[in-house]
Amino acid sequence: MVRVAIDAMGGDFGCEPIINGVLQALEEKSFNAILVGDRQEIEKMIPDRFSNNITYIQANEMFSMASHATDAIKNKETTIYKAIELLKNGECDGVVSAGHSGATMSLATLRIGRLKNVLRPAIATLMPSQNNKKTLMLDVGANVDCKAEHLFQFAVMGEAYAKEILGIQSPKIGLLSNGEEESKGNDVTKEAFLLLKNLDSFIGNVEGGQIFDGSVDVVVCDGFIGNLVLKTSEGVASAMTKIIKTNIKESFISIIGAFLMKKVFKNIKRLVDYDEYGGAPLIGVKNCVIISHGKSSPKAIKNAIFQAIKFSDSKINNTIENELAYFAKQ
Amino acid sequence: MVRVAIDAMGGDFGCEPIINGVLQALEEKSFNAILVGDRQEIEKMIPDRFSNNITYIQANEMFSMASHATDAIKNKETTIYKAIELLKNGECDGVVSAGHSGATMSLATLRIGRLKNVLRPAIATLMPSQNNKKTLMLDVGANVDCKAEHLFQFAVMGEAYAKEILGIQSPKIGLLSNGEEESKGNDVTKEAFLLLKNLDSFIGNVEGGQIFDGSVDVVVCDGFIGNLVLKTSEGVASAMTKIIKTNIKESFISIIGAFLMKKVFKNIKRLVDYDEYGGAPLIGVKNCVIISHGKSSPKAIKNAIFQAIKFSDSKINNTIENELAYFAKQ
Repeated sequence: MVRVAIDAMGGDFGCEPIINGVLQALEEKSFNAILVGDRQEIEKMIPDRFSNNITYIQANEMFSMASHATDAIKNKETTIYKAIELLKNGECDGVVSAGHSGATMSLATLRIGRLKNVLRPAIATLMPSQNNKKTLMLDVGANVDCKAEHLFQFAVMGEAYAKEILGIQSPKIGLLSNGEEESKGNDVTKEAFLLLKNLDSFIGNVEGGQIFDGSVDVVVCDGFIGNLVLKTSEGVASAMTKIIKTNIKESFISIIGAFLMKKVFKNIKRLVDYDEYGGAPLIGVKNCVIISHGKSSPKAIKNAIFQAIKFSDSKINNTIENELAYFAKQ
Repeated sequence: MVRVAIDAMGGDFGCEPIINGVLQALEEKSFNAILVGDRQEIEKMIPDRFSNNITYIQANEMFSMASHATDAIKNKETTIYKAIELLKNGECDGVVSAGHSGATMSLATLRIGRLKNVLRPAIATLMPSQNNKKTLMLDVGANVDCKAEHLFQFAVMGEAYAKEILGIQSPKIGLLSNGEEESKGNDVTKEAFLLLKNLDSFIGNVEGGQIFDGSVDVVVCDGFIGNLVLKTSEGVASAMTKIIKTNIKESFISIIGAFLMKKVFKNIKRLVDYDEYGGAPLIGVKNCVIISHGKSSPKAIKNAIFQAIKFSDSKINNTIENELAYFAKQ
């Protein structure tokens, strides 16, 4: 059975939504949950029937959201440090944390290490797109300043994720740029374009809108831009929703209309709902680390755990190492 | 009366939407329209009652969208070349073009020249935000790779536009970054942050979502990122609209609901409607140049003309030169 270590205290709202997420996951799938945190506090939240699938690792400290990621390595008593150590020592198959994402990332990179030939691990996230499809985007925050070869490796890692985890046989890879033509781009993306031509799956530059129109499976960019695109799209979706709501309230007829359209709005909410994915995999480290939002709901944690199970059951890391070894030889 | 030269043949759909836009503008405001294009083709579209406000400048060639912007300077017979020459020679007060934006930009920069101390002109655009506010974003495409001092100047130019054209007395300026903290950003934005601290109006880093929540008036970024953010937000809005439409069609009750909500949808469409702004000013050149989308509707052209009138009536270029002179002395 897959063993997933969960940073039980890392989120913004304490351990309650996290533990509830673990319990929801256990209702649906059989796995071993290793809860890293204050056992005294956590154990009373667990109904007896789950006790066979749960073990505890005591950790009393939480790495504060206000701290610098680089300090994470210094305090060995934090939940995230101990969770990553379990992974390092082969005592679990994957880690889920809704704590300080920079800390998780730097601990994973420093304590577990990168896959062979990987220069920089990247955080990948799924973006909703039309026709019920999803687009994988990476990097969305791990690496703020990138070189062309980093972007090339993100493409290789994204392709592996699309194949091994999302089950897309021939994923289409695009490079995020300010125009589709090869001549478009800033210095770094123009250089990356030339490297990416070596990938059969590369379809060329893609523009911001294509993330959401289903025309591409994997979108590659640096972590600064990935973060901006992610936050921008959340901002537009939330502004549109708010404007719809404000406008509805202004007339009785609209209120009735909105009531009749309830199902439609529910579908949209589901589509742009972060909870459906639950977490972003850190790709490029020698193991499985899923980074969840600090504000994760139980459903988000459940889905992050499912991602960890799928990731650790897959051959993604082998695929990445083989691909990069192939290009390293060239 | 303000004299606006209009590149009458530069758009993707020929001269019809452009001439119709000019006529709509003349219905609402009194100005002199100088139509640059093939008089024989254009004149038959103009009702007699407008003839007093219209003059013609013959130009037989259109600068092709497929051409390289750098070639624009070579062909002196194009509509955009001749329109820019009118501006250079003081024969008009502003230019509106829906043609090749790169060509317009390079002609404006090379033939008209930059304002004193301006390193790089920038294209600014208005983004819709909550509470019926708008956020000015620049640069959205003129400068793909930028240095910190370019971003600083964009802030100064954006502030002048917000004050002189949008009438915002104390505009709030934000630097687009991957987090609000000063420590966030890539190398260029971190350096720009330090320069921007010299502006009283600078409120610090802003994230992608803040463009749409009304918390900032001017958002500064390089043209590569500006383009990505613009296209991303259009992509999200269009994906959401399509998903709503598809879902509505799936049930009769939703169709009735949507009918009752017609007014709400109309308000949203208006809000995210590019036609309401009509064009993006090129800020930093020694005059008034408005760049419109190749697919502009008559309404978009009308509003672009109104922008040109407002711009050329304002003191924005004086303000920019004074501000930059002040900082150059420091």
